This record gives sequence, C-alpha cells and structure tokens, in this order.
Amino acid sequence: MINICQFGAGRIGHIHAANVTSNNRAKLKYIIDVNQESAQLLADKYGASVVSIEQALADSEINGVIIASSTNTHADIIEAAAAAGKAIFCEKPIDLNLKRADEALRAVENAGIPVLLGFNRRFDPSLGSVGEAVLRGDVGQLEMLSIISRDPVPPPAGYIAHSGGLFLDMMIHDFDMAHWILGEIPVEIFARGSNLIDPAIGAAGDIDTAMVTMTTKSGALCQISNSRRATYGYDQRIEAFGSDGMIMAKNHTSSQIETWNAKGITRKKPMYSFLERYVEAFRKEMEHFIDCIEGKATPFIGMHEGRIALALALAAKESLKTGKAITLKI
Amino acid sequence: MINICQFGAGRIGHIHAANVTSNNRAKLKYIIDVNQESAQLLADKYGASVVSIEQALADSEINGVIIASSTNTHADIIEAAAAAGKAIFCEKPIDLNLKRADEALRAVENAGIPVLLGFNRRFDPSLGSVGEAVLRGDVGQLEMLSIISRDPVPPPAGYIAHSGGLFLDMMIHDFDMAHWILGEIPVEIFARGSNLIDPAIGAAGDIDTAMVTMTTKSGALCQISNSRRATYGYDQRIEAFGSDGMIMAKNHTSSQIETWNAKGITRKKPMYSFLERYVEAFRKEMEHFIDCIEGKATPFIGMHEGRIALALALAAKESLKTGKAITLKI
Amino acid sequence: MINICQFGAGRIGHIHAANVTSNNRAKLKYIIDVNQESAQLLADKYGASVVSIEQALADSEINGVIIASSTNTHADIIEAAAAAGKAIFCEKPIDLNLKRADEALRAVENAGIPVLLGFNRRFDPSLGSVGEAVLRGDVGQLEMLSIISRDPVPPPAGYIAHSGGLFLDMMIHDFDMAHWILGEIPVEIFARGSNLIDPAIGAAGDIDTAMVTMTTKSGALCQISNSRRATYGYDQRIEAFGSDGMIMAKNHTSSQIETWNAKGITRKKPMYSFLERYVEAFRKEMEHFIDCIEGKATPFIGMHEGRIALALALAAKESLKTGKAITLKI
Amino acid sequence: MINICQFGAGRIGHIHAANVTSNNRAKLKYIIDVNQESAQLLADKYGASVVSIEQALADSEINGVIIASSTNTHADIIEAAAAAGKAIFCEKPIDLNLKRADEALRAVENAGIPVLLGFNRRFDPSLGSVGEAVLRGDVGQLEMLSIISRDPVPPPAGYIAHSGGLFLDMMIHDFDMAHWILGEIPVEIFARGSNLIDPAIGAAGDIDTAMVTMTTKSGALCQISNSRRATYGYDQRIEAFGSDGMIMAKNHTSSQIETWNAKGITRKKPMYSFLERYVEAFRKEMEHFIDCIEGKATPFIGMHEGRIALALALAAKESLKTGKAITLKI
Repeated sequence: MINICQFGAGRIGHIHAANVTSNNRAKLKYIIDVNQESAQLLADKYGASVVSIEQALADSEINGVIIASSTNTHADIIEAAAAAGKAIFCEKPIDLNLKRADEALRAVENAGIPVLLGFNRRFDPSLGSVGEAVLRGDVGQLEMLSIISRDPVPPPAGYIAHSGGLFLDMMIHDFDMAHWILGEIPVEIFARGSNLIDPAIGAAGDIDTAMVTMTTKSGALCQISNSRRATYGYDQRIEAFGSDGMIMAKNHTSSQIETWNAKGITRKKPMYSFLERYVEAFRKEMEHFIDCIEGKATPFIGMHEGRIALALALAAKESLKTGKAITLKI
Repeated sequence: MINICQFGAGRIGHIHAANVTSNNRAKLKYIIDVNQESAQLLADKYGASVVSIEQALADSEINGVIIASSTNTHADIIEAAAAAGKAIFCEKPIDLNLKRADEALRAVENAGIPVLLGFNRRFDPSLGSVGEAVLRGDVGQLEMLSIISRDPVPPPAGYIAHSGGLFLDMMIHDFDMAHWILGEIPVEIFARGSNLIDPAIGAAGDIDTAMVTMTTKSGALCQISNSRRATYGYDQRIEAFGSDGMIMAKNHTSSQIETWNAKGITRKKPMYSFLERYVEAFRKEMEHFIDCIEGKATPFIGMHEGRIALALALAAKESLKTGKAITLKI
Repeated sequence: MINICQFGAGRIGHIHAANVTSNNRAKLKYIIDVNQESAQLLADKYGASVVSIEQALADSEINGVIIASSTNTHADIIEAAAAAGKAIFCEKPIDLNLKRADEALRAVENAGIPVLLGFNRRFDPSLGSVGEAVLRGDVGQLEMLSIISRDPVPPPAGYIAHSGGLFLDMMIHDFDMAHWILGEIPVEIFARGSNLIDPAIGAAGDIDTAMVTMTTKSGALCQISNSRRATYGYDQRIEAFGSDGMIMAKNHTSSQIETWNAKGITRKKPMYSFLERYVEAFRKEMEHFIDCIEGKATPFIGMHEGRIALALALAAKESLKTGKAITLKI
Repeated sequence: MINICQFGAGRIGHIHAANVTSNNRAKLKYIIDVNQESAQLLADKYGASVVSIEQALADSEINGVIIASSTNTHADIIEAAAAAGKAIFCEKPIDLNLKRADEALRAVENAGIPVLLGFNRRFDPSLGSVGEAVLRGDVGQLEMLSIISRDPVPPPAGYIAHSGGLFLDMMIHDFDMAHWILGEIPVEIFARGSNLIDPAIGAAGDIDTAMVTMTTKSGALCQISNSRRATYGYDQRIEAFGSDGMIMAKNHTSSQIETWNAKGITRKKPMYSFLERYVEAFRKEMEHFIDCIEGKATPFIGMHEGRIALALALAAKESLKTGKAITLKI
C-alpha cells in the first residue's frame, strides 16, 4: 500500500485526497496545511492525520507527497521532499520565478526521485487524445495549433497578486499543452492582452483577455486565446491542423439533450467549472502518480516540462510589456 | 432543344417551370391551367404560350409533358399524353383510386413512353444518399428503417377533401422512400393516427398525427412517423440501420450559425418549407426527366413505383379504419 | 448510518455495492449469493460479510435490501424482505409472471415499506431530463414519443431461456420510460419482431430485432425500436415531440474528439456498454434509495410502475404471437 | 432593365454573368476580355456581345460595369468607368499598390458613382450573419474575433507572382471580415508565416501557412489563421466572442448524412471549393449591386473598405518581413 502525505487542504487538495483514497493501491496518511482547521477537516474525511512537515517527511512509510499548497511554497516543499527521497506530485507552476524553479529542478535531479507536475489537461480524454493523435502522426506533419481556454468567471482581483497573472496562472496550462503537442520548444512568442472584463484586474496590473502566437523551428505556428469570463461556461478546445487533416477536441457537456422549437435548436452549455470538466483527468493523473511511485511508469510531465511552460509564460509577460515578439532561448 | 408542355400553374408548377427554363437543354413551350390567368402569368414569365390541351398534344415539337395539375386530373392527362406519345413527368400520386391508377399504368405501357413520377425526395442530396448507401450495402443487411416527416403547419382542412388525407398526400412520400430503400415491397402494414392539431381536420374525417409500422418478407422492419405541424420547421429525417451500422439523413438548415450564451448553445432551425428544402431535388428530378426524354436514362421512379406507394397509403387508411394490421398483396 | 444487505454478487451487484460504499450515508453489511465464492469476493472488497438470508433479514440493523439476484428470485425475496420490514431496491423485472408480481406487490403494500425498482434510465442525465422536460410541459402537449435502444452485441442464446426474451429483459426499460414520459398507461400495443442477428436466438424462440407501437387515450402515439446488436456501440435515444416542439436525448461518448480528413469528419462512437453509459444513473438511483430509506423521498419507481412495464412487455409478446394489436386493460 | 458590361470572362466572370442573367432586373449586354475567344464563349452563352472597352463605356444604355479581370487592370477600369459615370462592381483587391488604390478611390469620389467591392463573404448566410449579429450586439461587447480560412489545395506557384501573395490574394478576405465585424480599424498587426506545403511557393517568395494577430483601440483582439491546403476541403469559419457570449459560423456541407459504424460516426466534409460554398453569397452580392444601381441601396462595401483591407494585407507583409508588430495608421 502506497502512503501519501498531502500539502494543501484547499479546493484542489480535496480533489486529490478523494482520488488517492478511491484508488485501492494508495492511502492518504497525512494532511498538512497552514490552516489547521482545513487540514483537520480534510484529514477527518479520509481517515488521515494532521502532522508537521518534519514528521511527515521523516516517516519512512510515506512513499509520495502531493503538493497542492500555494504556489510560493512549491519549490521549498519540492526540495524538502526530494531531500527525504519521496516521490512528488506538484501542482503547477513550480514557482513564479525561473531561477527558483531551476533550483528545485536541480534538487530533484540530485535526489533522483520521480516528480509529476499537475498539468492535468494532458490526461483529459479529449484534450489528451488530441496530443496523442498528433504525436502519433494522425494529422500528418503538424502545421497549425490553436488552443482556446476561457474560464466562466474571473477570479477575485486579489488572487492576481499571488498568482502571477493570466499568463502564469491560466495560460500556463495552454503553454504546456502547446509545447507537448507541437513536439518542439517554440522559438518565438508574441503576446497581446486587454483588460476588458474586470477593471480591478487591470488595477492589479493584469489583463483578462489575451492572445498569443508562437512559432517553432519547423515552421509550425500556434495560437492561444484566453478569456477570464465566458457566459456559456468553461470553454476548453484544441484544434491541431496538419498535412493530412485536422483533429479537434470540443467541449464536454453533462448531458446530451437538444430542444427544438420556434426559437431554434438548443443544446446544453459546456460544463461550468474545471472541477466538473476534469474529473476524469484528475483521477487519471493520480493513477499515473501512483504508477510512478510503484516504478511502473516514468512521470509523463516532469520538472523540465514544468520549466518550459513557466519560461513561455514569463516570455509572454515580457512580450506584452515590451510590445515586441520575444525570441526564446529555453 | 427539348420542348415541354406543362399542366398546372400553381406553386409546384412554378418550381418546375423555373427548372425547365434554367436547364439549357429544354424550353417551356406551353402552359395549361384551368385558371387562365395563372396560366398566362406563368407563361409570360418564361416566354411560353397558353394553349388548349388538344393543341399542345398535337404539336409534334412537344417532347414531354409535365403534369402538375390537381390530382384528379393526373390519370386523364397521363392517358392523353401517352396516346400522343409524349414523355411524361407526373406529380404524385397517380390517382387516389388504385384501379384508375392501374388504367393509367396500362395506357403508359401500351404507349411505351417514359414516365417519371415526382417523388422528389429520392433526388435529395441527403435523403437520396441514404437510399443509395443502403442499396450499395453500406450498412450491410438492412434491418430497421425509420422515417420521420413533419410539416411546419397543417394545410387548411378544406385541402383534405381533395387530397385523400394524410396517408395519401403526405405519407405517400415516405411510403415511396420506404419501398425504395427497403428494396422489397412490405408484406404487412399497421397504422395508427390521431387528430391532435386541428379539430377541423378531424371533422373532415382525417388525422394529423400518424405512426405506421411495415414488415417485409426478409424480416426488415420499418417505422414512419408523421405530423402536420412542427414548431421548429420542416422535419425530414431517415435512419437506416443494418448489420454493419447505420446511416442517417439529418435536417438541412440555411446557415451554420451557433450562438453560445447563458441560455445554452443554439443553432438554426431546419428550413421551413419543402420549397426551400428540396430546391436541389426539384432541379435534379427535372434534369433526370430531360435525360429520360433524350434517351440517356430510364425513369428512376416509374408507374409501378407510383402504384406501390399508392397501394401502401390506401392500406394504411384501411388499417387505421379497421384497427387491424393489413396483409399486403401488391 | 444505513446498513444494506445485498442479494446478488454478479455484474450489476458489483455496481450497486460500489455505489452503496462510496455513499457516505450507507454501508454494505451483508452479501448473499447462491455462488458463495462470488459472494465472498464481493464482501471482501467492501468489508461486508456473507450470511444466510435468514440472518440478514433478522438483523435489526439492516435498513434496506438490494435485490440484484436472478429474476426468478425477485418476488420471493421481496416478500421475505417486506415481511421483515426492510426497505427494498429491486432490479427489474419484478417477475416474468404478472400474477406473481401482483402477489409481491400486495406483500409490499401490506408491509407498508418503500420499494424502488431499478429502472435506472429515469436517473440518466439525458434520458431522465427528457422525461422531466416533457412532464414539465416543455414540449407543450406530448403527441409522439420515439425510443431507440440497441445493444452493442446480443446476449448468449442461453440467456434468453431465463430472461423472458427481448420484450421482458430489454424493451421493458423502454416500456417503463414510455409509460413515465407519456404520463398515461397505453391503451393498445402492437409489436413486430424478427430474428435477424443470431439464429440461436430464434431457435430459443425469441427475436432480436423489434418494433412496437403504442397508443394512449389522449391520442399520443409511441414508437419503440430495439436491436440486440449495433456495430457502433450502445445506442440509447429518446425523442419527444409535442405541440410546442421537440426534445431529444442523444447518445453519450467518452470524449469529444473530431477528426477531419479526406475521408470525412469522424467523431467517437457512443459508449459501448450500459455499465459505462449509466454510471451516473446507477449512482443517482442508489442515492435516491438511501433518501427513501431515510424518509427524505418516496420511491420514484414503485411496484405499480414495475407492474405496468411488465404488463406492457407481456402484451407485446402476445401481439407478436397472435399478429394482432392488443387492447390493454392494466 | 439594367444593362451590364462585364470585364473578364474567367472563372469568377462566369459566376457573375450567370447571376446577372438569372436576375430578372438585369441583362448582360457586353463582355470584354483580353482573351477574345473566352469573351465570345461567355457572351454567346448569355446572349451578350463582345465589344471594345471604348464602345462599352460610350454606350449610354450601360448602367453598370463588373470588373472581374486580372487585378492589375482593376484601377484603370475603375477610373475609366467612373469617368463614364457607370456604377461599378469590382473584384477584390482594388490594386496591389495602396497609392494606385487611392487614385482610383479619388476618381470614384469625384465621379460620385456607387462602387461595390466583391468581398463576397459578407453576403454569406453564415459568415455574414456573424457580422450582423455582432454589430447588432448579440454577443455584447466584442472582445475576441477568430477567423479561419483554409483552401483545399494551393494555387500554382506561378499565380503568386501576380496575386501579391497569401496576404493579398487570400487573407485579404479575412481582413475585410475582421475590419467589418470588429467595427473599428485595427491599430496594430503582427504576422507570422511559413512555407510548409509547396516549396515552389517559397521559391516564389511567399508563404502558404500564416497566422495574424490584430489589436484595436477598444482592446478587442483578433486572430486569423490561413492555410493554402486542407485535405478535408474548404474551411471557412468565424468565431466572435464577447461579454454576453459567442457566435460562430461553421462550415457548410452539401448534404447532412451521417454514417455510424465500428469506425466511428462520420459526416460529410465541408464543400470543396469557393464556387460551391459561396453560391448564395455571389448571388446576393449581385442582387445588391443591382439594388445600388437602381438607387435602392448604397454599396455595402465601398472603396474605403477595400482600401482598409488592402492596407492591412500590406502591413501583414511588412510585419512578416521585418519580424515586428506594425503600428497601423490607416
């Protein structure tokens, strides 16, 4: 039985805790959170204990740690867990600072432990299948990639201060998908953004509407489009176009109802939130993490991939600030 | 140049006249209609003349006649045109009476002229493709056929008196499609109907909502569903299911717009009327008629096919009246 | 905490056991199955015990029983559980014999216990929503109902002997949906069927392809179409048409991928099996059963509903055998 | 009756000639083409005469001229027709050179004649409806616009020499749509392109795969994606996203057939060519031109709109060449 220690008892922590527990190879042993009450609540729900980080990492029965705490704690916990020789699952991003991410990366490499980063979309039945199909050659030579991500509602402006902004907290998922599906690291990035939805986001120095173009050495082109608000729900689509055709992932809905009347033909909106949309992806990434701990698999998304997504997000920020296309040297 | 004489200057007559004229192999020479004014209007529009039936059929330059007049005139005109040795395009049905249809059939056989019946749906890009695919074996052995036809609005109840009612004026199209696609003449028919839409239709002795089941010797089963009213437009669908899969024809819309908002995802309703929906089918059936006149093709839908559709419609009426399944001997 | 005793450790038993366990209001206490080994396996998986039926029903801690054993045991267990005052969840059908079903019904009524029958489709997000929408009046006055159910592959012919055949083991689901959505008990039924898929099914005296027409007092008409095999997967659709429009439930797929190339535009097949397709429905029906035990709800599908579905299935059999439409007096 | 003189007897000339003729308010009187044989062929087909440009423009019966000749003749003919006081329909682009386009624009303004430019997509039932919906406010405040245009096959490389390349012969349509739907002239443009399909196109100094980003003063962002080749046919889509939702135009197909089998669910590819796809748009733009001649309408797309699309295309070329985002002063 794999024993897991989880850092973070927030919304995403609840998802991971449930997936660990429902997996019959693993058991949630410890929960750690700065908010003791939240930690206890989650621990009670799944029969885990609330301990200190030192106790947790010192326990030789612990095989893996899940890092679902706030971003600014990720690198520190990665280094501590690596030093303790534990396998790591860490939510994205590694850090908001590339140098700090590099330090964590080196700690992991020195420890020789498996690390899986939580870019959950690669595990989604639809979005993930597009990536697999492209890499398998289903569309021939990839020529154009288009990614659309729109959240149903913007986060509170206060969230921006800690998140690093749209490119780092939201589009970073798309950067990871783009890098994976393109099969090469982009050589140039151009970003434009606007503050059209919530003035408080603009006041916090960020944008809520963005478009990015990336080019690769092979000549493949990539577009990303993000919005912090979509009245119709959570919009998550990818379209990969190549010499032999196109493959696209469309949105998911919770039911397949159509109403036909004098107003037209109406079907259901996409699922509203990432919690609902990515249920299966969250389940599969945890399954994969347990496989990695058991040595049955090597992490699908490692520290290097996390570093590349971070570097792309930071370059997008720079492009937006300078108004120029940024040549990438990642 | 093929010269055409057309009987009937009503709504469907206007469609055929336009299609003859826009075909550069044919010319509309004469228009005949009991309503002289309508005849003259249509004739003027396309540079034709209004003449008597005798003059028209005596003109050796006339190669073909189009019968788009009221149903009760069809058999008489067929016989007269056959006697004059003209190729015939006749709107469905041949007649409301099977014996009278048989007489017309014999007249045509004796004359040895080509006759094409106006079951236009066989020429539709979608519905016709289903028939072709099934007969080509695309679904393997056909096992179940389902046909849905719904008109946007009911006809005036007065129309029922002359039309023969729903089975003869509306479902007769579906009977022809069913017979064609099944590839065999049904051996049994069971019909049920209700008067749910317009009480005046019930008062006229007819129904406006109907379902029919037919069985064939091979064991294939067929369902037909008709309504005289659909708030969302003209509903014309076919679904053919067999040992290797299914093929279906969905509705056509005039544009491919989708609106996504808080209410859902809404697309356009189907086209509203048969005039709009079957533009291409009407054009192609006229093209085919001209091919038949020129000896390049033999009629896709001849008198025998028309007789079978009529016999099925009459048997459906009998089933509805008697409450019993009717064994067919066609 | 609700304690559950489950009869039956087969495929459907595994689903119910998992859903009881993952529900945090209930606990699976006992498993009973004629196959002791299967019973023990399932009991071990969820921390339950294997006991005798007498022990189980005598345990005052048991609040409810789940009957997922073979059909011929249903009525007996219902009566025993009713006598013991336990709430009952029973898989469909109650019995293959209407008199026996009536006896069980009376036992339940005398005991005054809640009974929920396992017509899971009413709980499906798509199919169930159609029913709710129709009953809410979303399509106006219901005029036509069409239900399509096709299994991916036929059962072994040996299964037919015990199942009662297609009308009783498969179409009974559609009869329940029809009765529920129509909002009235049909007054007439007409059934036709063929043996087109597996000759062994025919040799066992059954059909594998069927169409049924039902009429109601209000004049609404209903079509059902069933096949024991569909190359493209599990086909489960409903279309309800009324005075104000139509609502339809389409198939579910596990991902929303589309491939565009020279061959056309291809999307995923429907989910392959009922286990995959009705995951959510099975979960929700168990949730509802627990609500019923706790007195928070009254059973959505009771013994009377089960009796009506059974009566319709038996009448369909009679119609097929006699060749006549059957007038129903249910 | 409106009399029309048409310059150009090529592929697009045939479409316009047919649409003029089938319109019962207009008549094609003259055809002019450097290729006398082509001119005569087209003239014969529609009962027109082949004359010199001087004769045509001197004929006071001529109300309008259609310019469907090669791009390098457009400005000259516009000026000559303007001097003769004729209404003008001119295919896009006005010219490849902005100064020359401005001269033609001034000639038109001085003459005070109506000029309609052939940006046919604005008249398309789907693409045009998106524009109308956005301008009507259906999506609230427009925030993001995405346009996809892909041709089924690349043109011969020789075509590039005269066409001005992808931005001027192909994406110019998208620039016009973008400018129209955005409701404002972009303030910045960034273009990237690759030569991935036909090396001969690269050798001719052009690209065959391109992505463009434009920004506007209001903060709305726009993406355009073009490819010279799509295995699945002619791909023409628009997606407009705003504060209240999204509206999209999807591809058109010639039939609505779906095949369901073990391989998946397959529907028809989009129509293959612009000739087939834009039949209705070509018909409507000619109808509109005739309305303009009759004074019933003012041109939907005038010289200023043509000038803006041209300026955007030239700026895209400059961005591609310099690698920089170009600030627009149009």
